Amino acid sequence: MRKRSYLFLGAGGVGGYYGALLHLAGHPVHWLVRSQAEVWRARGLLVESGGQRWHIEHPSVYDSPDALPSADVVVVAWKTTSNPHLAEVLPRVVQSPEIPVIMMQNGVGAEEDAARVLGPNHPILAGLCFLCSHKVGPGHIRHLDYGMVTLASWSPTGVPIGPTPIAEQIAADLASAGVEVSVSPDLVLSRWKKLVWNVPFSGLCVVLHTDTQQLVTDSATRQVARELMQEVQTGARALGRPIPDDFLDYMFELTDRMTPYAPSMQLDYEAGRPMEIEAIYERPVAVARKHGAEMPRVDCLARLLRFMERHRAH
Amino acid sequence: MRKRSYLFLGAGGVGGYYGALLHLAGHPVHWLVRSQAEVWRARGLLVESGGQRWHIEHPSVYDSPDALPSADVVVVAWKTTSNPHLAEVLPRVVQSPEIPVIMMQNGVGAEEDAARVLGPNHPILAGLCFLCSHKVGPGHIRHLDYGMVTLASWSPTGVPIGPTPIAEQIAADLASAGVEVSVSPDLVLSRWKKLVWNVPFSGLCVVLHTDTQQLVTDSATRQVARELMQEVQTGARALGRPIPDDFLDYMFELTDRMTPYAPSMQLDYEAGRPMEIEAIYERPVAVARKHGAEMPRVDCLARLLRFMERHRAH
Repeated sequence: MRKRSYLFLGAGGVGGYYGALLHLAGHPVHWLVRSQAEVWRARGLLVESGGQRWHIEHPSVYDSPDALPSADVVVVAWKTTSNPHLAEVLPRVVQSPEIPVIMMQNGVGAEEDAARVLGPNHPILAGLCFLCSHKVGPGHIRHLDYGMVTLASWSPTGVPIGPTPIAEQIAADLASAGVEVSVSPDLVLSRWKKLVWNVPFSGLCVVLHTDTQQLVTDSATRQVARELMQEVQTGARALGRPIPDDFLDYMFELTDRMTPYAPSMQLDYEAGRPMEIEAIYERPVAVARKHGAEMPRVDCLARLLRFMERHRAH
Repeated sequence: MRKRSYLFLGAGGVGGYYGALLHLAGHPVHWLVRSQAEVWRARGLLVESGGQRWHIEHPSVYDSPDALPSADVVVVAWKTTSNPHLAEVLPRVVQSPEIPVIMMQNGVGAEEDAARVLGPNHPILAGLCFLCSHKVGPGHIRHLDYGMVTLASWSPTGVPIGPTPIAEQIAADLASAGVEVSVSPDLVLSRWKKLVWNVPFSGLCVVLHTDTQQLVTDSATRQVARELMQEVQTGARALGRPIPDDFLDYMFELTDRMTPYAPSMQLDYEAGRPMEIEAIYERPVAVARKHGAEMPRVDCLARLLRFMERHRAH
């Protein structure tokens, strides 16, 4: 049986890593990159993971959506800050209403961004990655820790639609490529559970110029992180998605055991790139507020990040 | 008539500046400094203020409390972080129960610190300075902006005791020395009004490595500053001291017109000195909580500052 082909939009820590795994498992994989496709083609794609190095000599990589081969599945794996490009790119690469689009992005609102382009009936999924990985340079990915993916199908009303066959199929592909994967029946709950980690650690690492290890070992910031998580719980509860306290404990446990890590937002800050403040902070605060819940510390952290984004030295 | 003599404990931006003004107005003034008294004596005391330079050739300066001459008024003008030394110093320099002690310090709790040494019946006052001034080096003070002092008499119960004769007398001395001064009937209200400025601007300047001007001109941090001020209002209200909204507007107005300023907390951070986190943040949060009010953003900011204090590179 022909294996499902995948097109990754973006080839950073997420798209480069999962794309390489699917390629190594025998799936045809293509990547659309923003720039330097020629460097990729010359050097190939190198993924370092733990002590291992995987080298794909001739990756199928493109820097224009016009020349791309068609694929069975499209994975959006660039930052949410690039989503304004969806309007230009998705219509060219999603050539039939059956092609599922997986939003492997942080924060909330990514599926709505895609649905504004593809329409509310298109099969759109969230791919939520708990992953420590980053791009070292073009075609060079360094995977540091973890790698779990949660897949969930999107519905325009936000109502949980259960584990869909399409989510199960893609999960099977990822699992066969060696990824720890689960299918969630409720996209909204899964996105807010993901925020429980991203909200404290992404922003605090940027504001305090530090890493996850220092945040969880200092009693003051560990407490701030917990309070930010509790506000995410408050927001999720307002959406009818209570998150149990032991999930917070579990996030601390994973972070305690994690290689000292600079979240992608911090790399973005340091490189002078836009940060995912809207997706991870501003949209959740706005959604919670619409449902009657306030997240004062999260809102405050968002504004500190906006200030930093505007005032950093390039 | 013999003019009242003053002893300043501490000769930084506060003690050096107001001490110099009182000296120039003909009051005998003595200073106790932590170190480098010999540099002071050799160079004298220089205060730069606007275009003016005042030079006091032979200031009466000491580096040990044992040798100090007696004075009619003792002014504590060192940082609250030095208050553990009050137990050693105050008994030596406050030689009668009539000598008033003025706590020219930030935050809340300074009068209680002094009362723990001098007893609850000793005349203790707050001297709340709205002042942009700092020490450039030993005996060298740079005054940048403002200079208003609010005096208020302390009572052990916290009940407002009105403008006392002693506060009026000291206010008259300061006024004759050219200081804009007022007497407040309610120390607690005045201290919390002072927090309306200190809480947002001291901490945010440290966390964001910026100055007051950038904080008030960026819309994100102006909003955070306002929300922090509103939490100070909440705390003050719980203590039965409502602060009107137009006082917040007034603080913004003063800051808008202020020379771009690095608050003393920021200079402390950069110099590796302890910051007044307890007096300006932790004590107010604890007092408010005791009275049933939460200040989540202020509490959060306090913890970020604690992290920074523990992790700064010296």
